[in-house]
Amino acid sequence: MGLFSSPAKVYKPAAEVDLGPHSVAGEHYISPNVKAPRVAGLLVKMLAWVLETPVLGWIVLSVLKRDNLVYKLVSDAEIPEPPLFTATHTWQAMPEKNVSVTEAGVSPAERVQVAVAGIPADMEPAATAAALADGPSSSFRRWTVRDFHSAYSSGQTTPVMVARRFLAAVEECSGPDRNMGLFISCDPGDVLRQAQESTRRYQQGAPLSAMDGVLVAVKDEIDCLPYPTTGSVRMPAALCGVVGFKPTAGRLSNSGLLPLNWTVGMPGILAATVEDTLIAYAAIADQSKPSPLQPELNLPLLTSTRSIPNIRLAKYAKWFDDSSEDIRSLCGKALQMLRTHYGWESVEVTVPEIEEMRLAHYVTMGSECTASLAKYLNNMDRSEIGWDVRIALSAYGSFSSRDYLNSQRLRCRQMYFHEKIFETADAIVTPMTGVTAYALQDDALSTGELDYINGAALVRYSIAGNFLGLPAITVPVGYDREGLPVGLQFIGRPWSEATLLHLAYAMQESCGKEHCKKPKVHYDLLKKQ
Amino acid sequence: MGLFSSPAKVYKPAAEVDLGPHSVAGEHYISPNVKAPRVAGLLVKMLAWVLETPVLGWIVLSVLKRDNLVYKLVSDAEIPEPPLFTATHTWQAMPEKNVSVTEAGVSPAERVQVAVAGIPADMEPAATAAALADGPSSSFRRWTVRDFHSAYSSGQTTPVMVARRFLAAVEECSGPDRNMGLFISCDPGDVLRQAQESTRRYQQGAPLSAMDGVLVAVKDEIDCLPYPTTGSVRMPAALCGVVGFKPTAGRLSNSGLLPLNWTVGMPGILAATVEDTLIAYAAIADQSKPSPLQPELNLPLLTSTRSIPNIRLAKYAKWFDDSSEDIRSLCGKALQMLRTHYGWESVEVTVPEIEEMRLAHYVTMGSECTASLAKYLNNMDRSEIGWDVRIALSAYGSFSSRDYLNSQRLRCRQMYFHEKIFETADAIVTPMTGVTAYALQDDALSTGELDYINGAALVRYSIAGNFLGLPAITVPVGYDREGLPVGLQFIGRPWSEATLLHLAYAMQESCGKEHCKKPKVHYDLLKKQ
Repeated sequence: MGLFSSPAKVYKPAAEVDLGPHSVAGEHYISPNVKAPRVAGLLVKMLAWVLETPVLGWIVLSVLKRDNLVYKLVSDAEIPEPPLFTATHTWQAMPEKNVSVTEAGVSPAERVQVAVAGIPADMEPAATAAALADGPSSSFRRWTVRDFHSAYSSGQTTPVMVARRFLAAVEECSGPDRNMGLFISCDPGDVLRQAQESTRRYQQGAPLSAMDGVLVAVKDEIDCLPYPTTGSVRMPAALCGVVGFKPTAGRLSNSGLLPLNWTVGMPGILAATVEDTLIAYAAIADQSKPSPLQPELNLPLLTSTRSIPNIRLAKYAKWFDDSSEDIRSLCGKALQMLRTHYGWESVEVTVPEIEEMRLAHYVTMGSECTASLAKYLNNMDRSEIGWDVRIALSAYGSFSSRDYLNSQRLRCRQMYFHEKIFETADAIVTPMTGVTAYALQDDALSTGELDYINGAALVRYSIAGNFLGLPAITVPVGYDREGLPVGLQFIGRPWSEATLLHLAYAMQESCGKEHCKKPKVHYDLLKKQ
Repeated sequence: MGLFSSPAKVYKPAAEVDLGPHSVAGEHYISPNVKAPRVAGLLVKMLAWVLETPVLGWIVLSVLKRDNLVYKLVSDAEIPEPPLFTATHTWQAMPEKNVSVTEAGVSPAERVQVAVAGIPADMEPAATAAALADGPSSSFRRWTVRDFHSAYSSGQTTPVMVARRFLAAVEECSGPDRNMGLFISCDPGDVLRQAQESTRRYQQGAPLSAMDGVLVAVKDEIDCLPYPTTGSVRMPAALCGVVGFKPTAGRLSNSGLLPLNWTVGMPGILAATVEDTLIAYAAIADQSKPSPLQPELNLPLLTSTRSIPNIRLAKYAKWFDDSSEDIRSLCGKALQMLRTHYGWESVEVTVPEIEEMRLAHYVTMGSECTASLAKYLNNMDRSEIGWDVRIALSAYGSFSSRDYLNSQRLRCRQMYFHEKIFETADAIVTPMTGVTAYALQDDALSTGELDYINGAALVRYSIAGNFLGLPAITVPVGYDREGLPVGLQFIGRPWSEATLLHLAYAMQESCGKEHCKKPKVHYDLLKKQ
């Protein structure tokens, strides 16, 4: 570092940090200190070239790291705690209320059955009849797993009909008019084959579960580059106005995933509603390793949401408010609604070292990416790799082993802070993103773009869930003045998935009307062909 | 890396590596590939200066790392396994024979009692009577814990008398004649006060345990710099002709230790004999966390050594023989003696990637050192830090986060290899060091010296124990042609401490006569004043 070092931060022991709302000990909130202009077009190519030039690249990266406080807050910092390499939790799981406890050995189909049984019976049943009779319903409502299941069971439609309509929509979206490229890979033959088998099971009255015949998309893990998108469930969910759910690290199996990062991020669920999230969660939760690191699986009984007593929500005002005016306002109103509807308390806290955690997470994610992708990158021609990816890889490759270790020491501190905060509250409430979706500009199309300022605003609230392996959920709470969706997030203590689903359901119910607006493009998969 | 990269090694999946004695798949033994001349005196200062110069230092270090295969085998390598950050073992503990199982909650004094009860009663009892009567005995024999305890109990001598003689010897050794500087810190007042209390307890017939009044030295952890000395117990033990014992990672508490490294190394025991090693182990073993990661504590019953059936020793011939002629010969004879005396089998195996493991360990240890010492180094003037330490810190600080992560992936491979080898053998047998103690040359005194070639030969056999957290023990097996001690090492499967102590005891018994030679300097602490 030498040339570029700056006075390093001397961290006090985590136990001495004041977590109260008005931290007198000087726990300042640092808004992400991103010093990097948006770069696109020719500038991206030039920057990639500079960064890949041995000595010059090292100097430019050193200046960038100094300006972004990497040396001050991470590399050269004095940190009292030892490294914590993985986001595993030795905390005691708390008993949760109004849940079904599913025993080890229960099959996914049986777990789905338990989940469905916990969804209110008095819900408006599938609007399929009206939809099928009248064409696209005028007041749009997303079709849920239960809508499909009910329509399949009654014979109003079949998985094959839905699959055909889906494939037609994919084709239209991928065409030159829309050019949306929704799917990296979609095999119509396989989709239809599965739909035919499902249709047959419904005809025989023996569907596999409530999810039989319901279309599910699986995300390809590689598309996160070059952004430090975080692992990438809750953020896209919030931007798209749906529910995004990330259970505790270890609750969903990683097997089969490309290990882009080993110690941050994990799979999650995007779904139209909290009920569908619950059903999908029940279907894929891993309970194969019962241990203190993976306690029994609780599925919430949403029927009794209104009776959950004494939910305490923690809010860190400076952080909560570090978002666009509309987001701040909508999320503030949603929180107020929860207080009013359910009488829940909120406590003001300080979550210290938010910016430090963002840097530590960036170092960790970048370092692990660069090590895990070596195998693929070694076998690629440099020209096959996107310009923006090449820049990101240059930055990632510049981190020292000390940066990595110090980042794990910051993880250890954060784990302690969150453990303490969860002694006073059941969940931390934040907006899900600092900005809503922003348009990709034309100059970004050929070279990619680097926009770390908007990038940092996007990931502002999603890092704790990823870096600390805490469960978190986002629920849509409205639309900003441009009509773009806004999500609210709850971060829970380890293994409190049921509590988070309860919370999200309560939020969805009290915000219900807001997010029933019809999106600009909507394909009604249930419409008769 | 760019400028200095070389064709990287592509590792095949660990499960496909041939661990048989004559690995056909090309698992070559690479003798440590150290490309760094011995440097001392003015050259050390110049090298430190070069390495601390920003761009020049980076270039020189890059060349050194390339020449030492760091890029080829670690940085740029393609490794299929994920990182394993700590040397914790999920392997099943094997039942051990001829042991006392001590239950959790047993006090250290009680455990010492259990250990003593397992030591053969027919041993030659303390030679104190003869020693006290006749002056220094002509046939030297090291005094053991039991010798002291017996002499204290019978009143032949007292802890105070021994302490006075010890302090006089320390003073003589530290004087200008010998200038040995044995102790960084020794408080005569405190030693005498403790000896007086112990003497009083013996007079009242109530010593704390068999260790009451026995002198114990505690190693200061910081002295390992600049060498990557490993955990630093077995190696010095072998060089000094005593027993060195490193239990499984987690068996001895780290609390109170300066965390020089977080994931490699751990405390250990140096003692004159295997019996004393056992007693000290019983006294300090940690059994506070009963779990799969810390099973119950087994203490061997040495009385029945000869009845241990079917010990299988694994030997990797190429590695075993990569030591000085005398060491190879003495260790070979010792192993032959074990086969003859006890009828034990040995199996030929391949331990793959020894050199790769040495590099991975060096990267890990150096990276962790540089992060953990920052706090101390930041507060020191550069002139207060030794020149050799400054060079080491420059090298350590040059490792990237990818180097660190790839090193942990190599750790994961090695853990797998060792697990497989321990399916066919109870312990791996090696010499403890590749060379015996070598003299510090005059030019090293003011600036320190860098002798990575001898350094690598010293640590050649000690890395597996440290990096993988495996238990290991060294026993003296003779002296080379210069009269310097040679040690043999057994590396065991996790939690097989009792088996290792059995093995070491068997070795000590069959080599008994060899290491009864009188060392050049000997202070008889039992001699009357």
